[in-house]
Amino acid sequence: MQLPDIPDFDSKSAEQARQRQNILTKPSGSLGQLETLSIQLAGICGVSHPSFPRKAVIVMAGDHGVTEEGISAYPAAVTRQMVINFLRGGAAINVLARQARARVIVVDMGVAADFEQAVGLVQHKIANGTRNMRRGPAMDRLQAEESIRAGIEVAEAEIAKGLDLLAIGEMGIGNTTPSSAITAVYTGLPVRQITGRGTGLDDSGFLHKVEVIEQSIAINHPDPSDALDVLTKVGGFEIGGLTGLILGAAAHRIPVLLDGFISGAAALLAVELEPRLKPFLIASHLSVEVGHRAILERLNLRPLLELDLRLGEGTGAALAFPLVDAAVNTLNEMATFSEAGVSGKE
Amino acid sequence: MQLPDIPDFDSKSAEQARQRQNILTKPSGSLGQLETLSIQLAGICGVSHPSFPRKAVIVMAGDHGVTEEGISAYPAAVTRQMVINFLRGGAAINVLARQARARVIVVDMGVAADFEQAVGLVQHKIANGTRNMRRGPAMDRLQAEESIRAGIEVAEAEIAKGLDLLAIGEMGIGNTTPSSAITAVYTGLPVRQITGRGTGLDDSGFLHKVEVIEQSIAINHPDPSDALDVLTKVGGFEIGGLTGLILGAAAHRIPVLLDGFISGAAALLAVELEPRLKPFLIASHLSVEVGHRAILERLNLRPLLELDLRLGEGTGAALAFPLVDAAVNTLNEMATFSEAGVSGKE
Repeated sequence: MQLPDIPDFDSKSAEQARQRQNILTKPSGSLGQLETLSIQLAGICGVSHPSFPRKAVIVMAGDHGVTEEGISAYPAAVTRQMVINFLRGGAAINVLARQARARVIVVDMGVAADFEQAVGLVQHKIANGTRNMRRGPAMDRLQAEESIRAGIEVAEAEIAKGLDLLAIGEMGIGNTTPSSAITAVYTGLPVRQITGRGTGLDDSGFLHKVEVIEQSIAINHPDPSDALDVLTKVGGFEIGGLTGLILGAAAHRIPVLLDGFISGAAALLAVELEPRLKPFLIASHLSVEVGHRAILERLNLRPLLELDLRLGEGTGAALAFPLVDAAVNTLNEMATFSEAGVSGKE
Repeated sequence: MQLPDIPDFDSKSAEQARQRQNILTKPSGSLGQLETLSIQLAGICGVSHPSFPRKAVIVMAGDHGVTEEGISAYPAAVTRQMVINFLRGGAAINVLARQARARVIVVDMGVAADFEQAVGLVQHKIANGTRNMRRGPAMDRLQAEESIRAGIEVAEAEIAKGLDLLAIGEMGIGNTTPSSAITAVYTGLPVRQITGRGTGLDDSGFLHKVEVIEQSIAINHPDPSDALDVLTKVGGFEIGGLTGLILGAAAHRIPVLLDGFISGAAALLAVELEPRLKPFLIASHLSVEVGHRAILERLNLRPLLELDLRLGEGTGAALAFPLVDAAVNTLNEMATFSEAGVSGKE
């Protein structure tokens, strides 16, 4: 499939930001990760003084046939119910986005429900949920392509409306199961080591989930050298949508704040499809979901936050908005040693 | 000395917040540390739905006679220069406070400079810097009391103007040295283990700093059972001021966001003076300064952020403002399962 061109990371702008950090009125390096982040953001945006007045969280929703195997603590109907909750503004992501003055865009990538009445929902439904990947591929290859293309389109539509910084999130009961499968395929780690309890499985539920993931991989033989094959066989529509968002944003030099485990799995796929987008990714937080650490290690990303979150929706990413603003505001607004008449190191 | 009464932590309001967290539209506990924090804030404020529209950062500044021993990478004149930078709005704390819509109050607790011309500076100068603690007590016992009393007064004055949430910070070239001494006295750990490089010492500078701290403790014999004695002998005016801020805020149920190592040392003293204030403390971040971890362990506090900061000024505390808002906004604004018609766990 045709993917958008990813521009070069702009080392010159990054270097200008680095040099400015060294003349601001503070010991060099004393703002730690904020300084590193400001330099990365300059390189992503291709400007020495980046800023992000227009923020958005895009939440991709989809259902999963594999829920019929009983791998989630919550009923599949909750995906639909939470989409309505997002549209009404009552979910955690709505509250956190409001606080950061970011808009929330909710996309139906494949929820098993009829949303004709739902005002404000972006419609990209590929099917009423994936098929049960324990019995065969979760989707067709064409659907996998379509899900990525939809994500790129949504990103482009939001960029056209005006967008400087993108946080991505998702809702899909059961979607830690395909995310673990994707993570197992790319890290080579045993399924048990990168599988968690999702929204709240008990011990026997956890062991069953591990078994279902192992069987799904064994039956489908996803090919790690072909990311589309992995998405087709053990992925999800909202996961493909997230992969498309990452590609579409990076193509336009928009920094992408990843959320937790599911958006991390989507990032693994995106980087396989287009390794050049790696410097455009920012890890907002480290999730409780155990496989997330393995993903961040593989992507060589250090998270900004570690707050024991395991909610998804883009909540971790939205919590990182103020840190991104802090990184560029200090870069842009602090006085230099010479402007302030402050002495340097002896 | 007379200390303000510290109220009880309100377990009933905390319990109401805990119960509400369990009926909001998310898996219980899935907002991690934000949930714990929201419950603590309810208990501190004594209301089930706390909120913090009026925020302030109070920055206490002071100089240290021990700088004549060459324990800092920066000249002592930088304390004065940075106070001017704070008043002009050019420092990191100004940028971060502006972003959080918090006001910045700068207090001269004992800078070795004449600030008669400085508009906006709160004047509580106790002396032109402490004495060199390597040769004797850093201050008199009356000065130690005066520094704490000044902090309480500043807190009360700001509360009278309208204050819901307080972040505390400091500026004082050389002040990691007394902070290490205080930390050594209270943790019993070897000085070398809880001493860092401050704003940027090299290896030999670090070894010399350790020696100076060890000698200061050996010469002065600070008595751990008498926090005022510790402050008198190996403390600083801005450290006493921070101790007073903590006491003054807690007395009025105002949550206190600690910053890094120096405000941590002040918190050690405050808790010694009044153990009842422990539940009123919030650790904003874990600093690079190595002794900070020992302080947080002793106070049994888990930091919200870990961003490799080592700047002081209250920067870490100000970065935690949005997380505090996020904790109470989700508590107050999210829909419940029954309001949103979302199904619970199966």
